[in-house]
Amino acid sequence: MPYDLWYWPTIPGRGEFVRLALEAGGIPYRDRAREEGEDALIADMTGHDAGPAFAPPYLVTDGGTIAQTANILLYLGDRHDCAPGGIRQRHWIAQLQLTMMDMVAEAHDVHHPIAVDLYFEDQKPEAERRALAFREQRIPKFLNYFSRALAAQPGDWLGGTRWSYADLSLFHLLAGLRYAFPLRMAALHDRYRALAALQDRVAALPELSDYLASSRRLSFSEEDIFRHYPELDAP
Amino acid sequence: MPYDLWYWPTIPGRGEFVRLALEAGGIPYRDRAREEGEDALIADMTGHDAGPAFAPPYLVTDGGTIAQTANILLYLGDRHDCAPGGIRQRHWIAQLQLTMMDMVAEAHDVHHPIAVDLYFEDQKPEAERRALAFREQRIPKFLNYFSRALAAQPGDWLGGTRWSYADLSLFHLLAGLRYAFPLRMAALHDRYRALAALQDRVAALPELSDYLASSRRLSFSEEDIFRHYPELDAP
Repeated sequence: MPYDLWYWPTIPGRGEFVRLALEAGGIPYRDRAREEGEDALIADMTGHDAGPAFAPPYLVTDGGTIAQTANILLYLGDRHDCAPGGIRQRHWIAQLQLTMMDMVAEAHDVHHPIAVDLYFEDQKPEAERRALAFREQRIPKFLNYFSRALAAQPGDWLGGTRWSYADLSLFHLLAGLRYAFPLRMAALHDRYRALAALQDRVAALPELSDYLASSRRLSFSEEDIFRHYPELDAP
Repeated sequence: MPYDLWYWPTIPGRGEFVRLALEAGGIPYRDRAREEGEDALIADMTGHDAGPAFAPPYLVTDGGTIAQTANILLYLGDRHDCAPGGIRQRHWIAQLQLTMMDMVAEAHDVHHPIAVDLYFEDQKPEAERRALAFREQRIPKFLNYFSRALAAQPGDWLGGTRWSYADLSLFHLLAGLRYAFPLRMAALHDRYRALAALQDRVAALPELSDYLASSRRLSFSEEDIFRHYPELDAP
């Protein structure tokens, strides 16, 4: 039985990290809200008594419902060909994934530093201050860490000699950062050549070529986590 | 061999979620930076080529180093008596833990909405705006979710009929919220009686009585994640 993935149907968002693993792993799934619309997602979420999730994405399996992006990926990595085997590598990949999710949350809060319920326009001065700190301090701090993590591997991938869901996630995270902060990421390009090379390797994976060329791969936009507001970017 | 836990030695912080599981689970460990000081922690962190962690806490095991709080707890839950058995429950508890860690990060950002590298005093107007949204929107949203999660269980605990690391974490999260936002939490008390009762059950666990009465249990402070600044609290 294919998995049911539930996520907002019009943005890559956090759902994209799960989609990439499902697609590259050749794992059958239905992207339910893309088939049935956002109202179906809202109805499904409110239909679970305990709440299947605090927020999408969530995955429906034979055994129940699993939420939290890194938790879904851990589950998929245990069962399908998208994570390295062995306890140590399993928790290493989970550790990297969780650190990426922390950076994703910070990238979101750049344009929403005060409240998710307010518009960007209602928190713009604060967003400009937070963007400065994110560009100057946080992007290098996270990317230095991922660079060191990659350099310590015996192979070309974060988990060693074969790609895992963490590489797919880093590919999407870097793409999102380049979309939202093109000037800053261009200025940092030479410092993070090894990460850019990893991004290129993922983009060239035969397992992903159909997906990346398809309409299933949604575009970034200013409704998403990674948003390009020119006033928040600088070299 | 006992585990080595590494975390900042003067605050509960995120390390406390791990300490509670180690203590309640009767799992032998050494709290290395509490024995050897903060300089030893910094030396240990910089001594790992790939970085053992983006940030503490991390746990040293026979097989390597594991970082990210929820990842450490997942590892401990698989090996020791602090999580329910079975795949479904395992990922359910991990899902709740990750949602708690999201709330912890938001509680931190209330007093640091702009940058972790700036003092609170340098981002106080922004903190006051963010605190309003956190008190009014985010605390109820998260606590409603944890309430529904608890109400859906067949027993008194988030994982059913026995405590797990997620209950210990919710105990500490609620304690932190009461410390940081005493007026708001008092105003919400009647709405979340079931969560307060869970907090009381954890406080009364025989497995934790020695620890909670000891000097190993550190106090909250304004150096920590949960900080009490009166200007950020209101009913």
